[in-house]
Amino acid sequence: MASDPLPAVEFWFEFASNYSYLSVMRIEAEVQRQGVRLLWKPFLLGPIFRGLGMENSPFVGQKQKGAYVQRDMARQCRKYGLAPWTTPSVFPRLSVLPARVALLGADQPWIGAFSRAVMELNFVKDQDINAPDQVGAILTALDLPADALLAQARSDDIKGRLRQQTEQARAQGVFGAPTFFVGDEMFWGNDRLEDAFQFARETA
Amino acid sequence: MASDPLPAVEFWFEFASNYSYLSVMRIEAEVQRQGVRLLWKPFLLGPIFRGLGMENSPFVGQKQKGAYVQRDMARQCRKYGLAPWTTPSVFPRLSVLPARVALLGADQPWIGAFSRAVMELNFVKDQDINAPDQVGAILTALDLPADALLAQARSDDIKGRLRQQTEQARAQGVFGAPTFFVGDEMFWGNDRLEDAFQFARETA
Repeated sequence: MASDPLPAVEFWFEFASNYSYLSVMRIEAEVQRQGVRLLWKPFLLGPIFRGLGMENSPFVGQKQKGAYVQRDMARQCRKYGLAPWTTPSVFPRLSVLPARVALLGADQPWIGAFSRAVMELNFVKDQDINAPDQVGAILTALDLPADALLAQARSDDIKGRLRQQTEQARAQGVFGAPTFFVGDEMFWGNDRLEDAFQFARETA
Repeated sequence: MASDPLPAVEFWFEFASNYSYLSVMRIEAEVQRQGVRLLWKPFLLGPIFRGLGMENSPFVGQKQKGAYVQRDMARQCRKYGLAPWTTPSVFPRLSVLPARVALLGADQPWIGAFSRAVMELNFVKDQDINAPDQVGAILTALDLPADALLAQARSDDIKGRLRQQTEQARAQGVFGAPTFFVGDEMFWGNDRLEDAFQFARETA
């Protein structure tokens, strides 16, 4: 097999995370622009936060920061040309089902469109992203076999793989989302997406 | 008096804060480029953190985040053309004396040069920034009357004014540094400096 000439960037994201939302919505356009190979790494932040001694997102635990994040998200959505920001009525939402489906599709051509649709369900339509009928409707709209994928997402194999992936995040030092890796080099936050891509190109 | 035609940006910073260091080093060049009026607002993060229930900087309290910040600072210093990053041997350093001097000089032409010299003492030379001889040497190098300024910095008036300024930061919702304000609009972090300046220009 020929080796892949494109530098690789790991993209660790969580469907409940509002700053992951910003990166998910814009990352495939950046991939096209910058010519990197993207490795989609869905994981769960809940076990990571609990492992760090936090009972919840810092945006919930720290009221001042949580209030600020609403203003920041409104401005960032405007900056990136996304739908006007609305504070979700539930935060952070349970995201285990879409994370399992994303793990199934991580190297499939539909991973980007699926992930954007789940993020819009959460942060634009303000709806439950963990409901099988909602996730199924997204898959069907992408002309995918929703029932078969949902059944596979509930298999012990995929459940175990998502736990392993979250453990891998912890082992690599992840403490928030989104997080990007280029080899061992870690970049935290949507604000570092461009830096991570540039680093990948420079060190390829 | 003629009104000032330039939009105003408040710059809340702390000499012990490494991300404040990045902003202090580059902000006067940005002021020139973007045409805003800068209001220097030195304050102390310690009382703010304690008021939020934190005993220390989150970079000390959260080991994973603290380790990451070292990598991030190394990359950011390179990006901005600053001296190579060295992890300070004491973090966060006591900063009450330089903060009082900065409050004295907040609307003086030497505030930028003084603030950069204190930041370099902390984050490049890795030395005590709270020692009167060190702060005095910086003032002397700027052709300022060091003894008179240090005496004034220790006056009850300036001590009280720094406490008031830190209380003002808290009242405005500040939870970290650097923080920028354009009117009531708050921007947190060195990564938002450009956004704050642009917002000031757009809303002037």
